[in-house]
Amino acid sequence: MSEDLGITVKKDTDISEWYQQTVIKGGFADYTPVKGMIVYRPNGYRVWELIMGEFDPILKAHGVQNVLFPLLIPENLLTREADHFAGFTPEVFWVTRGGDQPLEEKLALRPTSETIIHTMWGKWLQSHRDLPVRFNQWCTVYRHETKMTKPFIRGREVLWSETHTAHATKQEAEKETEWAINAYGDLVERILAVPVVRGRKTDSDKFAGAEYTLGIEALMPDGRALQSGTSHLLSHKFAEAFGVKFVNEDKKWTHAWMTSYGLSMRVIGGMLMIHGDDKGAVLPPKVAPVQVVIVPIVFKEKEKIVNDATGKIHSELKKTGLRVVLDDREGYTAGWKFNDWEMQGVPLRLEVGPRDVEAKSVMLVRRDTGQKIKVPFEKLKATVKKELDRLHARLFSKARESLVQKTVNATRMGEVKKAVEDQKWALAPYCGNVACEAKMKVETGAEPRLIPFGQKLLKDTRCVACGEEATDLVYWGKSY
Amino acid sequence: MSEDLGITVKKDTDISEWYQQTVIKGGFADYTPVKGMIVYRPNGYRVWELIMGEFDPILKAHGVQNVLFPLLIPENLLTREADHFAGFTPEVFWVTRGGDQPLEEKLALRPTSETIIHTMWGKWLQSHRDLPVRFNQWCTVYRHETKMTKPFIRGREVLWSETHTAHATKQEAEKETEWAINAYGDLVERILAVPVVRGRKTDSDKFAGAEYTLGIEALMPDGRALQSGTSHLLSHKFAEAFGVKFVNEDKKWTHAWMTSYGLSMRVIGGMLMIHGDDKGAVLPPKVAPVQVVIVPIVFKEKEKIVNDATGKIHSELKKTGLRVVLDDREGYTAGWKFNDWEMQGVPLRLEVGPRDVEAKSVMLVRRDTGQKIKVPFEKLKATVKKELDRLHARLFSKARESLVQKTVNATRMGEVKKAVEDQKWALAPYCGNVACEAKMKVETGAEPRLIPFGQKLLKDTRCVACGEEATDLVYWGKSY
Repeated sequence: MSEDLGITVKKDTDISEWYQQTVIKGGFADYTPVKGMIVYRPNGYRVWELIMGEFDPILKAHGVQNVLFPLLIPENLLTREADHFAGFTPEVFWVTRGGDQPLEEKLALRPTSETIIHTMWGKWLQSHRDLPVRFNQWCTVYRHETKMTKPFIRGREVLWSETHTAHATKQEAEKETEWAINAYGDLVERILAVPVVRGRKTDSDKFAGAEYTLGIEALMPDGRALQSGTSHLLSHKFAEAFGVKFVNEDKKWTHAWMTSYGLSMRVIGGMLMIHGDDKGAVLPPKVAPVQVVIVPIVFKEKEKIVNDATGKIHSELKKTGLRVVLDDREGYTAGWKFNDWEMQGVPLRLEVGPRDVEAKSVMLVRRDTGQKIKVPFEKLKATVKKELDRLHARLFSKARESLVQKTVNATRMGEVKKAVEDQKWALAPYCGNVACEAKMKVETGAEPRLIPFGQKLLKDTRCVACGEEATDLVYWGKSY
Repeated sequence: MSEDLGITVKKDTDISEWYQQTVIKGGFADYTPVKGMIVYRPNGYRVWELIMGEFDPILKAHGVQNVLFPLLIPENLLTREADHFAGFTPEVFWVTRGGDQPLEEKLALRPTSETIIHTMWGKWLQSHRDLPVRFNQWCTVYRHETKMTKPFIRGREVLWSETHTAHATKQEAEKETEWAINAYGDLVERILAVPVVRGRKTDSDKFAGAEYTLGIEALMPDGRALQSGTSHLLSHKFAEAFGVKFVNEDKKWTHAWMTSYGLSMRVIGGMLMIHGDDKGAVLPPKVAPVQVVIVPIVFKEKEKIVNDATGKIHSELKKTGLRVVLDDREGYTAGWKFNDWEMQGVPLRLEVGPRDVEAKSVMLVRRDTGQKIKVPFEKLKATVKKELDRLHARLFSKARESLVQKTVNATRMGEVKKAVEDQKWALAPYCGNVACEAKMKVETGAEPRLIPFGQKLLKDTRCVACGEEATDLVYWGKSY
């Protein structure tokens, strides 16, 4: 591989260009002739499959059933809940023609599916015995984004899991929204090694039509916050608009309490941005399409002993359930292969040359540290597993350390402003007045990201923006 | 359950109404306010998940990688291959607006993805070392159908697996199309218990832009053929239109040989129609969302011993990996539950009452035959497994018997006509002249379905339509 086929900018120098090269050259995604839409290439889609593979059983165990509702939503359904309509229509793709004929009614590509799912629940739900009901779709949603797009992070076609639930009581629905946001947080930390903060959105930033929205946010290396999953208490608003009712235990028709929550492939973008280095992606093992690559180092007349050894190592590691590839492609040098797999973020590389075979050992190379470890054949399986675990743990602790270091406790607006300038975010008190959010945005460039759970606000704490009594601590920062 | 909540027509009397009730009341799908689009409800979507779960590893083992290309295809890509354009545009949904703005170029909802995938391959592929390449999408496709829609069988939004491949030689591409159609046939027979015939489409019925199309067809109880999967040799047509080239071993740029193949959720419709009975769906165990349901028969003061026993049976069967449900819902009679699970097609029901517990046995009821088998506790696991296997085998052999009985060997047009009237299809010789297909359609109502593989045509065999020398035996029949 010639130098210019690798990543040509440093992450610290130009993270935006670095990210784009990392995504494209690592085979995760690419731009297409369709404006604002990317193709999810094998590596990128496989990461998503692995996320689905981890999360789908968690949803099922929680009583969630997978379904698929129509992509196309008639305009009259989308407009039925006024706040929701106002929130989404500016960004909707409209289908107006079928074949040569204009359609009788415009159809929106779903920006989210509350309206169509609640319409059907209005028809299906009868009794308290039907509740709770929980539907999930692993699907795509569409938003005609006018902002700059960025693969995985912001685009017009987004892969996600969207879950919708209906409950007999508000208390149950509230519990559901908390369950969801914690499930998302746990998942992202456990398999993507991405630490997140959890909390509630300020009112100005909640889902269109929700009573409130919970979220998880991750902090990117450039100090921007990445909203990575949200969970909404919809209460009765949609139930009233769409007639979602049931007969309760007292035999009275009553509106159901609704929630919805979603986790998108944004988390893949966040994961790539946080863990990657100047050579490209670094993948946590649980979501790495290839966890271990074996590269034979072949010299003339020594091919057979090397190929025999790598073949054996390959089949033995595969038996343990690892995603392992033997790169025996001809016509490429070992060095070219090293770079290729490094760009793709493969956690561990095993190099096997004639001398290694003679010494009955293998050279194991860690993608994150570059550390080389000579491993005797008989300890290979155990060492590979151990190093994969270590790599995950190191990625997570490094990212958490960064999150801690880049979180500034601020009590004055100037401190928030400085935090943003320093590519950090600030945790600072807020009075709850929307006007203060606007003021903060103008003066510091920061937006409220989350009101974290479990905070303890001291008495007489003052809002950083207006100096009035604060109601909450809030994370302030720029966002993606 | 009152009688009218069950299936209210007999399958033999009105298969169309029976099918609709079976699909809706079994929880597989329902109509929505979006014309021609259904919602895939939990039972229907779960069947599809189980099909994906069986087939995805087969694709992966064959070297297929999953990806996702944009749903929206710019008009200029769709028009680039003339035959393809002519074949698809009359049925395309067009997106013409984004938010309040008209789009610069109309975007089609993908009817299939050759055009966008080949565009990107034109950019990515470089060397013979990149070949073969195989991409699959588990996704939805859209056709603005003007014909009557029928859940799963024909609709405007279709779930499917679409695979696209590029190869260095025509021979390899031809081998690929055969691999695919056989993989589809094997899958459908092995997990859906639906026997199919395999063969080649006549030229008039091939995919728009293909050199030829292979297919599998299943025979429905009303004698109509259901196309259930297709595989296309695209040869160079798309490669030329989209510039899909590679440098071969002689260092010359040359066009790749392309194929595409697809399997849709039509197979779910065929499976429901073939195996179902007057009580609703009958599901083969491999795709049954619930394979075994346990219904406690509770009498006053005997609740505890029954509930203890069913709880224990439930957890023991679950441990074996079976999809088993304990229906301990309150407020429903056992009879209501029996009907409910029968409509959903659950293969085996276990009834457990106080006397069963005393006798240390369970009453096992087969969904397909209604047969009741008293099974001692200690033999339950083995018997359940055995009866599930038997049920599958019986469904398949019954369907194959029907396929054989409803296949008429015909040498004259009148025989084909009679076969169609008798709700059968006919295997009859054909000269290859498209005019004869039109004649057959007018005179008999039948269309050519497939030219089966491995046929032996006797010399001097005459076309049923024109009496000229025949080239092939062809299945003739009505189709869905």
